[in-house]
Amino acid sequence: MRKTYFMAKDIINGYVTTETHKGITTIEFFHPQSNSLPRRILAELAREIHDAGRDNETKVIVLRSGGEKAFCAGASFDELTQIENEKKGFDFFSGFADVINAMRKCPKMIIGRIHGKCVGGGVGLAAAADYAIGVEGADVKLSELAVGIGPFVIGPALERRIGLAAFSHLAIDATMWRNSDWAKRKNLFAEVHSSVEAMDESISRLANQLAHSSPEAMAELKKIFWKGTADWDDLLNKRAEMSGKLVLSNFTKEAIVKFKSKR
Amino acid sequence: MRKTYFMAKDIINGYVTTETHKGITTIEFFHPQSNSLPRRILAELAREIHDAGRDNETKVIVLRSGGEKAFCAGASFDELTQIENEKKGFDFFSGFADVINAMRKCPKMIIGRIHGKCVGGGVGLAAAADYAIGVEGADVKLSELAVGIGPFVIGPALERRIGLAAFSHLAIDATMWRNSDWAKRKNLFAEVHSSVEAMDESISRLANQLAHSSPEAMAELKKIFWKGTADWDDLLNKRAEMSGKLVLSNFTKEAIVKFKSKR
Amino acid sequence: MRKTYFMAKDIINGYVTTETHKGITTIEFFHPQSNSLPRRILAELAREIHDAGRDNETKVIVLRSGGEKAFCAGASFDELTQIENEKKGFDFFSGFADVINAMRKCPKMIIGRIHGKCVGGGVGLAAAADYAIGVEGADVKLSELAVGIGPFVIGPALERRIGLAAFSHLAIDATMWRNSDWAKRKNLFAEVHSSVEAMDESISRLANQLAHSSPEAMAELKKIFWKGTADWDDLLNKRAEMSGKLVLSNFTKEAIVKFKSKR
Repeated sequence: MRKTYFMAKDIINGYVTTETHKGITTIEFFHPQSNSLPRRILAELAREIHDAGRDNETKVIVLRSGGEKAFCAGASFDELTQIENEKKGFDFFSGFADVINAMRKCPKMIIGRIHGKCVGGGVGLAAAADYAIGVEGADVKLSELAVGIGPFVIGPALERRIGLAAFSHLAIDATMWRNSDWAKRKNLFAEVHSSVEAMDESISRLANQLAHSSPEAMAELKKIFWKGTADWDDLLNKRAEMSGKLVLSNFTKEAIVKFKSKR
Repeated sequence: MRKTYFMAKDIINGYVTTETHKGITTIEFFHPQSNSLPRRILAELAREIHDAGRDNETKVIVLRSGGEKAFCAGASFDELTQIENEKKGFDFFSGFADVINAMRKCPKMIIGRIHGKCVGGGVGLAAAADYAIGVEGADVKLSELAVGIGPFVIGPALERRIGLAAFSHLAIDATMWRNSDWAKRKNLFAEVHSSVEAMDESISRLANQLAHSSPEAMAELKKIFWKGTADWDDLLNKRAEMSGKLVLSNFTKEAIVKFKSKR
Repeated sequence: MRKTYFMAKDIINGYVTTETHKGITTIEFFHPQSNSLPRRILAELAREIHDAGRDNETKVIVLRSGGEKAFCAGASFDELTQIENEKKGFDFFSGFADVINAMRKCPKMIIGRIHGKCVGGGVGLAAAADYAIGVEGADVKLSELAVGIGPFVIGPALERRIGLAAFSHLAIDATMWRNSDWAKRKNLFAEVHSSVEAMDESISRLANQLAHSSPEAMAELKKIFWKGTADWDDLLNKRAEMSGKLVLSNFTKEAIVKFKSKR
C-alpha cells in the first residue's frame, strides 16, 4: 500500500491520504468546506478503498476524515449549484454511489471513525462502514429534501443499516438533527463515546483485534453482511440519475438562491 | 379538496372529515366507542385518503382522530360479534386493509397524529403513516390473539415499520400494553412529546415544511419508502380471509361471550 | 408427551429433559461446562422440540437450561478442538442448525428463558425463540471470529431477530460483551427482568396465557413470523460446511492452543 503525501495546496483543494501500519490501513479524506466532497475527491476516495481491499498488507480499514468539526457535510454544494443538465447531474450524484459501492465490495472490514456531524452523503458513508464508532456530538441529518432532491443514492445503504423506518424518519424531516445517541440506538453507530480520546482508543483496540483475526473468516463475514446487494452498482446509478433530474427543477434552483443569500 | 361537514348524528354514528388549508389536508375520523371503527367509516376513510392523494391542493396529509382519549381501538367490536360466515368475516377484516392500502398508494406523505392509545387496527394505522408523531400515554397493544384471531391484516404494515421481532413480541403478548416510549424506540412513532400542545406544534411545523417541499421529490421518496409492497392489495385481502375464518371458531365465540359479560 | 428421567451420569454428561403440565411443555438442556453443548445433546434437543411440536397436549413450549450461570456457552469447545476434517467439521456445526430448524418448524410458540449469559450458538437459541424473556446479567457475545470462524450457522436467526446491523456489530467485535439491556433494545429479548423471580413470573404468566389461546391462531401467527425461511434447512447446512472448512485453518489451530494454555 503506497502512502500518499500531500502538499499545502491540498489544504485548499482537499485530499485523500492512505497509510498502512501493522495491517491497519487508515484512509483519510478532507475538504476545507466542512468536509463536503467534490466529485474529484469522491473518485479518489473510491479508488483508495478499492486498492486497500486488494492490498495484501491491509487486514482492516479505518475510514476517517480530517479536521475536528464535521465528519462529512455531503457532496460539495458549490458543485451542486453548477449542474446544468441531466448528464452533469448524474455525474455529480454518482460520486457517493462510487464510494459506497467500493466500501460494499471491499473484502476487508471497514471501521468508520465518526468524529463529528454527518449530513447527506456523510450519513451514507457512516452507514456503509461495517462498524462505525462515533463520539457525542456526531449528530446526523438528511437535508436533501430541503433542496428539492432526496437521499436516493445513499438510501439503500441507510435502509440496510438503520432500517426503513428510521431512514424514512430522517429523510422526511430534512431540517431536524438527530443526535449521536439516536444514531447509536438506530444502529448507525455501533458505539458512541464521550470523548474523541475514548473513541480513538476503542477504534485502535478493535482495529488491532481485527488485524490479528482470520482474514478468511472476515472475508466470509463481509460477504454475508452484504449478500443481496449485488444489484447496487446498477441501483445506485439509477438513483443518481433520479437525483440528477430532480436537481434541475425550479424548486432546487430557488432553494439554492435562498441558501446562497444566507451565506 | 372538498370540506366535509357533519351533523349531530355523526357524533353518534361516527364520521370522517377532511379539510385542506395551505396545502395541508387534515383527515379526521371519529367514533364514540373509543374510535373503534365500523366498516362504513373505514371505507370512507380509505376513500378520503385516496381522494387527498389525487387532489392538487393537497401537498401533505395529517391523519388524526377525534376526541381526547384513544387514537383508535381497532375495528368495531359490535360488528365483530355479528360475523356469521366467512364472507362477512372477510368483509369486516378488509376494512383496515383498504385504509392501509390507500395510505400506501397515496403519493403524498402522511403524518399520523397519535394523541392516545392504539389497539389492533389502530396500531396498523400508526404503522402505515409515513411519519407518526405521538404523545406520552399513546400506548399500543395488539389484542387480536386474546379473541382467537391474529394481527394478520395489519401485520405487513407493522413488520415493515417496526421489524419482525418487535411485531412478533407485540402480537404474542396480546394483553400487554407497550408504552409510547417503546413505540418510539421501535420506530412506530418518529417522535413522542410530553404534551398534546408540543405534539401539535411539531406536527404543524413538519406539515408546513412539507407543504413547502418539492412535491416531485416527496413523491419519489414515497415510492422508495413503499417499494416492494405492490402485492399488498392481494396480500392484505388474503390476510382478511384468514382472520375471517378464524373469527368463526368456538374459541372466538367463547371469548366474545366473556368480553360482553365484563362490559 | 413423555417425561424424561435422568440419572447421576447426566450431571456429568449433560441432559435434555421434557415435561408437560397444563399445556405448557418445558424443555431443559444442561451441560456441566457452562451449558456448552456437545453434538449429542444438540441432536436430542432438536428431537425434543420436534416432538413437542407434534404433541397434542403441548400448547406452548418453554425452552430453558439448567444451572444458574450461563444460559448457553455455544457448542462444546472440547469437540471443536477434535475436528480433523471437513466432514467432522460439518457434523459439529450442523448441531445448532438442527436445533434452530426444529424451533423454526415447530408450529407452537417457543418462549426462551434466558437466565444467564449467551455465547455463540447460545445467542442463536435466544434469537430463534419466538419470545425470549431474560434477566439482568444475561449478556451476549459472538466469540466465533476470535477462533478463526464466524457466526455463520446462527447468522440467519440473528439477522432475522435483531437485524443486519446489530448482528454485524456483535459478530465483528468478538470480544465485547453486550449487556442484557442492549439485547432488549435490539429485540433479542422481548423483556428483561431485574431478578430471576420476576423473569419466571412473567414467563409463567405468558405461558399460561398462550396455553389458553387459540392453537389455530397461534399456528397461523407462527407461520407468518417465519415466512420466507423455507430455505433454511439448506442454508444452515451450507453455513455449517463453511464453518467446517474454516475451523481447519492454521489460524483456528493456533487460537485453540492459546485458549487451552489459558485454561
